[in-house]
Amino acid sequence: MAEEQQPKRTDVNTLGEFGLIDHLTQRFPLRNPSSVLGVGDDAAVINNGDLHTVVSTDMLVEGIHFDLMYTPLKHLGYKSVVVNLSDIYAMNAQPKQITVSMALSNRFSVEALEEIYDGIRTACELYKVDLVGGDTTSSPKGLIISVTAVGQAEPDKIVRRSTAQVGDLICITGNVGAAYLGLQILEREKQVYLSNPDTQPELEGHDYLIERQLKPEARRDMIGHLAKAEVLPTSMIDISDGVASEIFHICKSSKVGALLEESGVSIHPDAEYQAVAFNLDPITCALSGGEDYELLFTIKPEDAEKVKYLPDLYIAGEIVPAEDGVMLNSKGGKLHPLTAQGWQHFNPNQ
Amino acid sequence: MAEEQQPKRTDVNTLGEFGLIDHLTQRFPLRNPSSVLGVGDDAAVINNGDLHTVVSTDMLVEGIHFDLMYTPLKHLGYKSVVVNLSDIYAMNAQPKQITVSMALSNRFSVEALEEIYDGIRTACELYKVDLVGGDTTSSPKGLIISVTAVGQAEPDKIVRRSTAQVGDLICITGNVGAAYLGLQILEREKQVYLSNPDTQPELEGHDYLIERQLKPEARRDMIGHLAKAEVLPTSMIDISDGVASEIFHICKSSKVGALLEESGVSIHPDAEYQAVAFNLDPITCALSGGEDYELLFTIKPEDAEKVKYLPDLYIAGEIVPAEDGVMLNSKGGKLHPLTAQGWQHFNPNQ
Repeated sequence: MAEEQQPKRTDVNTLGEFGLIDHLTQRFPLRNPSSVLGVGDDAAVINNGDLHTVVSTDMLVEGIHFDLMYTPLKHLGYKSVVVNLSDIYAMNAQPKQITVSMALSNRFSVEALEEIYDGIRTACELYKVDLVGGDTTSSPKGLIISVTAVGQAEPDKIVRRSTAQVGDLICITGNVGAAYLGLQILEREKQVYLSNPDTQPELEGHDYLIERQLKPEARRDMIGHLAKAEVLPTSMIDISDGVASEIFHICKSSKVGALLEESGVSIHPDAEYQAVAFNLDPITCALSGGEDYELLFTIKPEDAEKVKYLPDLYIAGEIVPAEDGVMLNSKGGKLHPLTAQGWQHFNPNQ
Repeated sequence: MAEEQQPKRTDVNTLGEFGLIDHLTQRFPLRNPSSVLGVGDDAAVINNGDLHTVVSTDMLVEGIHFDLMYTPLKHLGYKSVVVNLSDIYAMNAQPKQITVSMALSNRFSVEALEEIYDGIRTACELYKVDLVGGDTTSSPKGLIISVTAVGQAEPDKIVRRSTAQVGDLICITGNVGAAYLGLQILEREKQVYLSNPDTQPELEGHDYLIERQLKPEARRDMIGHLAKAEVLPTSMIDISDGVASEIFHICKSSKVGALLEESGVSIHPDAEYQAVAFNLDPITCALSGGEDYELLFTIKPEDAEKVKYLPDLYIAGEIVPAEDGVMLNSKGGKLHPLTAQGWQHFNPNQ
C-alpha cells in the first residue's frame, strides 16, 4: 500500500497559524484578471464588472473552536454565520449569501441539526443574507461547520488591510476582551461540573460576558454609520484573534508601525471586574483575548471630526513608521512593545 | 451546564443525505435580489450585473470520503479541487477562484500539508483557477478539507437541473463506473494488507480504474466542445453520486421522467472486466457507482445532429413525462424501473 514515507517531519506548530497559511499559499500566484485580491485579507475580492464579489470562509471544529458542553446548538449555528459576516463587513462590503457545509457524527440527531439551522436562519434573517448552498455529510467524530460568506461592494469602497498610512488614526469599535472572559467563566463552570455533576453552574450575573462569547454580533451597524458619515477607512480588519494580533496584521500588510493608546481601548465594566476576579490583567485580556468581532480600522486624520460623534467608536492610536515598531502607550505613560498573540489553535495538547 | 435535552431523537439516516439537506434548508427563502438560485443545484447563482457568479462548496472528511491508507496526499489535494470545479462546469460556467479550508490533527506534518497543497496547486494550474482564500486549523482527529469554488458565466448561458423538457435527449460524457471499481480494488488490497502487512498490493494492470478513483478530472473540455458546437444543454448535472442518482435529481427538479438506454451507457473495458471479476453486474456499477465526475445533460432533439460528432459523448435516452417514471431499457429490450442510489454517507457503522 502507498504508505506515507516522510524523511522530514516539521510539526505544524513550529510555523504558527498565520505562518503556516503564508507558507502553504506563497506559491499560488493570481492568474485570472477577475482575481483582485487573494489570500491574506479578511476576504478575497473578485471583479465582476460593476460590483466586486467578496468571499470569506471559516471552519469551526468541535473541541477546537467550540465545546458543546456549554454551547447551545442554536447559538453555534448563529455564531458560525456571524463570524463569517464579520469578515465581509471588515472589507466594507455587504454580505448577501452564505453556504454552509457540515460534517457530523451520528451522535447528532435530526433535531440537533434543526437547532443548528435555527440559529443559522436567525442570523440570515437579522443580517439579511441568503443561505444558497452547502453540503451535509457524516464525520467519524464530532461536528465541523464550514461557512463561506459572499458579499458585494462597489470596487472603490472595498477596504483592505494593506493600505494604512503613517499618520492615520486607529479606531476600535465597541469594547474588547469580554468574549474571552465569557469563555473563561464557561470553562471554569465546566471544570466544576465535571468534578461534581450535581453542582449548579454559577452563571448568574455574567450574562453580558457569556453572550459576547456564545452569541457575538458582527458590526453591520458601524459599516452603515461610516458610510453615512462619508468616512472611508484607509484599512480595516475584524477582531477575531485579539486587538494586538489584528494590529500586527494591519502593520505587516501595510508596512507600517502603530502606537496604541491603552486609554483608547474600551473594556466593559463586567470584563474589567471579571478579569480582576480571575487574577488577570484587564488590558491583557482586552488586547489578547479574541472573538470580540469588533472592527479595527484606520482613518485619515482629517476624518477625525466626522467620526467623533459616531456611537461606540474609539480613537485608540496612530499609525507610525514601520521602524518605530508596534507599541502600547500605557495609562501610566510608559511605552511597551506590543506582542501579537493570536489564538494558538495548534495546541499540542489537543 | 446547558445540557442537551432532546425529547425526540430522529436518526439522520432516516432522511437520507438529500432528504436531510432538503429538510434543513426548506425554511430558507431567498430574499436578496442578487440570489438567483439557492440550494438544490450543483452550485448557487448570484447576479452581479453583466456576469453571474456561481458558487459551489464540498467537504471531504477522512474516513468517510477518503482513506489515507491508499490515497496519496497530493492526489487528495488535487481531487478536492476537481470535484468542486466539476460542479461549476455542471452549471456551464467557468471556475475562476477557489478557497480551501482545512482542519487537521497534529499527526500531520508541514511536509504532509505541502503535499496536499502541491496537489491543489497542480489542479489550479491545469484548470486555470486561483486559490484566493481559506483557513487552516487543527482538528482533534483526522483531516477535513472544505473547498469552495467560484465561477463566472453569462446569465443566459447558465444551465440548471430544473429545466429539462419532455422530448429532450439525455447525454452522458465519457464512461461511468470505473471510479467505483477502482475504489473496490483499493479497498480489497487494503484488507489484504491489514491481514498481512508483508504482502505486496496487486495493483498492476489496474492503473486506469485506480486513477479514475484517485485522480478524477472535471469535464472542462466538454463545456468547450458544447460552446463551440453552439449547443446549450437544457439541463445539466455532474455525475458524483452515480448516473441513476443524477437522473433522479434532474427528473425531480424538472418534474419529468426519463427513459435511459442501457446501450447508451459507456463502460470502460477495464471496468467491465473488473466488475465481472468481482462478481458484480457491470451496468449496476455504471449506474450506481459514483465519483466519475462526468457530465449528464439534456439537449433539444434538434441539437442531436450537432453533438453527434463530439468526442466522448453518448446519447443515452430521452426525457419523458413524469407519469412514465424513470426507466431503464436494458440491452435485452426489457424496461426496468431505475432506482436512485446515491452514496450512503450516513452509514450507521461509521
